[in-house]
Amino acid sequence: MKAAELGEFGLIAHLAEVIARAEGAPSPVPGTGPARGTSAQLLLGIGDDAAVWRLGDALELATTDTLVAGVHFLVEGADWRDLGWKALAVNLSDIAAMGGIPHFALITLGLPPDCELEPLTELYEGLATAARTYGTRLVGGDIVGSPVLFVTVALHGIASGTAYPEGVLRRAAARPDDLIAVTGWLGSSAAGLQTLSSNLRLPAGALALFRKAHARPQPRVAEGQLLWREGVRCAMDISDGLLADLSKLCAASGVAARIEQDRVSVDPALRRHFPDTWRSLALSGGEDYELLFTASPDAVARVQQRAAVPVTVIGSIEQGEPGTVILVDAAGEPVPWHHGGWDHLAGRTP
Amino acid sequence: MKAAELGEFGLIAHLAEVIARAEGAPSPVPGTGPARGTSAQLLLGIGDDAAVWRLGDALELATTDTLVAGVHFLVEGADWRDLGWKALAVNLSDIAAMGGIPHFALITLGLPPDCELEPLTELYEGLATAARTYGTRLVGGDIVGSPVLFVTVALHGIASGTAYPEGVLRRAAARPDDLIAVTGWLGSSAAGLQTLSSNLRLPAGALALFRKAHARPQPRVAEGQLLWREGVRCAMDISDGLLADLSKLCAASGVAARIEQDRVSVDPALRRHFPDTWRSLALSGGEDYELLFTASPDAVARVQQRAAVPVTVIGSIEQGEPGTVILVDAAGEPVPWHHGGWDHLAGRTP
Repeated sequence: MKAAELGEFGLIAHLAEVIARAEGAPSPVPGTGPARGTSAQLLLGIGDDAAVWRLGDALELATTDTLVAGVHFLVEGADWRDLGWKALAVNLSDIAAMGGIPHFALITLGLPPDCELEPLTELYEGLATAARTYGTRLVGGDIVGSPVLFVTVALHGIASGTAYPEGVLRRAAARPDDLIAVTGWLGSSAAGLQTLSSNLRLPAGALALFRKAHARPQPRVAEGQLLWREGVRCAMDISDGLLADLSKLCAASGVAARIEQDRVSVDPALRRHFPDTWRSLALSGGEDYELLFTASPDAVARVQQRAAVPVTVIGSIEQGEPGTVILVDAAGEPVPWHHGGWDHLAGRTP
Repeated sequence: MKAAELGEFGLIAHLAEVIARAEGAPSPVPGTGPARGTSAQLLLGIGDDAAVWRLGDALELATTDTLVAGVHFLVEGADWRDLGWKALAVNLSDIAAMGGIPHFALITLGLPPDCELEPLTELYEGLATAARTYGTRLVGGDIVGSPVLFVTVALHGIASGTAYPEGVLRRAAARPDDLIAVTGWLGSSAAGLQTLSSNLRLPAGALALFRKAHARPQPRVAEGQLLWREGVRCAMDISDGLLADLSKLCAASGVAARIEQDRVSVDPALRRHFPDTWRSLALSGGEDYELLFTASPDAVARVQQRAAVPVTVIGSIEQGEPGTVILVDAAGEPVPWHHGGWDHLAGRTP
């Protein structure tokens, strides 16, 4: 059997089982508990945007994400500064989703023998620019020979709070009657990706807008911290598409969700230039790197008042089959949707 | 210009410059100082076995290392449990080289579409076995599609001490008149690699011995902590060959070294079965994952008394051109050696 046949999430679950069995720890969250001989205590293992452990008074966060040439980007025509930016930004977004403060990053570069020095220099300029923008330092890493170029970032941060679990934002903390909200506009990044692979005719301004949304995502680091300060405790970032990611959040929390499709926040330019597909781009496009969160109406209102980016209520958490997301139209009628999230192994929407 | 033409260390220096320029920090150690908005303080950036930062009362350590198919191992005939073991072990060795206590690891898997599930399961069993053996937990990671299989580990730990720099073992802490010592036997791993790529006829016992040294390196985690407790402050692990790695340690410390080649510790079986090459395997073979350290004669004697593995004095630190390593024979006469360390980008000894 091919590993990829399990799908990304099936494979992660399988390997988590393998680890748990070898460690003798209870599945499905291997590894919670102390590492031997250290005072570090693991609080949250596989299954959220970042791992969480206690070290002294602090809750530390750690996450890792990779970009592979030919899979996550094309070498031909690549803007290498954008790639460096994005390699760090997608990790910053994971720390943001925990409400944390990013601090230090390790960079691993898989380097093909024929790689030119200039694009590599630009790649690291992009990494360093993103680091500086978000108050983070690049502190080490590894360079290895590889037939294919890849960049792996391992990013560390600390939580906004010091107690667990209330010191972090988690996927598993949604409760029935919470409102569901998102930062920013959805679908613009997926639109940007489409402009790269099709010959759509768009005005230069619109083209630049969508491409920037795709190439230079703005991780919502300040917003994640704001959410935590205002009492939000449940969040994740949207990387695989709103509905697919919300389904994961609901599964982790043991709840269901109802989304009003007309409330999903979309840039007016997306609606104008993608009249047929704007809605599916916003619901399932992916790589938005906006924050998806659930909280009481009061907490959401406080966030809306104080956030520097738009924060839009798009639905509510309900009791129901865990992981179920019901999409409804303006009349409240259910709209069918297929589980269109991105499977990173299949390289296509399943 | 091709990036690989700079060589691994030239390229690292170049990219460290790029980062320092973009960060506006002084070169050549970018990033020391606080990350913005956190209480975490970076103490040691690019250039040692692990990065070191302060978080509360603790000094935290972080390192990352990668194995790439076709570069660091061959898929054909691979023992996947061994590979998993080694992927974690080489990182554990970096924490050992800092005198630290490993705690949590993130695993990134680059997964080709045609990869079978069974070898992958065995790979994670090997990772988890190494983790359990060394009191470490696998707490998260990432699985990405990739044309080539690779495994990246990012490993965290804490230092034995709480003050900096005396709480860790560093490359830059060698002083003239220190003795130079190593743990274990050198060259056996390189011999094991040779048996894989040649048709040497060896007795089964010897073959197993060398192959195990190569496939299942035993990171000297307990020994690193012992070194620190006994007052040693300068160490690194031997991954690229004794002489090449010692040269790096001397360069970092601004000193030179003299090594008596007859004192270098070698398994008697290596001498017997590799009568022509045992010495070069021990001096320059690489992938030993033993600890190389320098300290006062008293501290070395205490370590020798208490260590569970052989600890051998092989030379001494001297004043001289930083990075120079003089190899001498039994009569004290210099023996020429070429800088035969492993360049990970060239994929050959330069």
